[in-house]
Amino acid sequence: MIVTEHVDFQTNGNAEMKDLTAKVAAAVERSELRAGVAVVFVSGATGAVTTIEYEPGLAEDMLGALERIAPREIEYAHNRRWGDGNGHSHIRASVIGPSLTVPFSDGKLMLGTWQQIVFLDMDNMPRYRRIVVQIMGE
Amino acid sequence: MIVTEHVDFQTNGNAEMKDLTAKVAAAVERSELRAGVAVVFVSGATGAVTTIEYEPGLAEDMLGALERIAPREIEYAHNRRWGDGNGHSHIRASVIGPSLTVPFSDGKLMLGTWQQIVFLDMDNMPRYRRIVVQIMGE
Amino acid sequence: MIVTEHVDFQTNGNAEMKDLTAKVAAAVERSELRAGVAVVFVSGATGAVTTIEYEPGLAEDMLGALERIAPREIEYAHNRRWGDGNGHSHIRASVIGPSLTVPFSDGKLMLGTWQQIVFLDMDNMPRYRRIVVQIMGE
Repeated sequence: MIVTEHVDFQTNGNAEMKDLTAKVAAAVERSELRAGVAVVFVSGATGAVTTIEYEPGLAEDMLGALERIAPREIEYAHNRRWGDGNGHSHIRASVIGPSLTVPFSDGKLMLGTWQQIVFLDMDNMPRYRRIVVQIMGE
Repeated sequence: MIVTEHVDFQTNGNAEMKDLTAKVAAAVERSELRAGVAVVFVSGATGAVTTIEYEPGLAEDMLGALERIAPREIEYAHNRRWGDGNGHSHIRASVIGPSLTVPFSDGKLMLGTWQQIVFLDMDNMPRYRRIVVQIMGE
Repeated sequence: MIVTEHVDFQTNGNAEMKDLTAKVAAAVERSELRAGVAVVFVSGATGAVTTIEYEPGLAEDMLGALERIAPREIEYAHNRRWGDGNGHSHIRASVIGPSLTVPFSDGKLMLGTWQQIVFLDMDNMPRYRRIVVQIMGE
């Protein structure tokens, strides 16, 4: 059985980190499925999803790592072509990736105690985001 | 229900980016499944899959990021042991990752308008590649 | 059909790489499912999973790349807040990611010949780890 849900929210962009855990867990609960996987997917090329211990220190540290992978202030071929100044956003999103698959059992996501599902808005401006949660199970 | 398909193509290696979107979408359509996920998987240790806005600028910018993560010209323990000169290829492939899970609904991949599924051939030579598309749904 | 299995092991931390391939393959075989996917998931915020050619040279080279992404010796906001000294561990785990989805067909994982499923323990101390293997198929 498959249930498609969405999580909608506003972000400020610039690698802002949003905790989606409660909303994904609620979607799994509403599905009434007992075992399976929740696929969390970003429809869009400048957002990414992963897990982390959600606390302000690591949000700041993640921004540091993203600066090492794709610094904001260097030149991007994307920016020369399109002039939208978000070349770094695209590269950061592609490296972290748009999909995360979280198993659940007895209707509960099998996350660690200090592990949250987070969305990273890599874009360089505020965005309204809609994340897909595709729940498959029995 | 599960349908296994493949996408086959030739690459030039050296982080060449290939757009797989149309072929994955066609595989989902052929499956006649309405809702589910398409798992795009690279069988091989020097290729990776992610999503990106597919345009030449970002292909060049991605190469820049891969150079920061695993530069081509530094020394690799892998190269000292095996002499094949593709240590950087392996590390780049493992960091980006070999699997991507894309949900679909009404028989259509739930990608953003400017978001494509891409294969990155990290190897240091031309390769013939066969990508697995495992489609699961109802 | 869905089968939940676990793989348990001890690590030394500090980016130690563990080959999980044989245990994941055995779990797929025990499930008696013929086609589907095995989702390998790390319940915890300081471990990650990917694929690589498992050999000591690449384990060393991966550590080099992780140092470029999140160096051990720089300052982390996480460490200032929590004093556990593993800010780099969290960031490395989040960049590589906690989930990997591997398709199988005829009861066999569709990995390349030189491609293994590996767990990376990013924490800065030895850990006992339990990895989830969620097998879905028919």
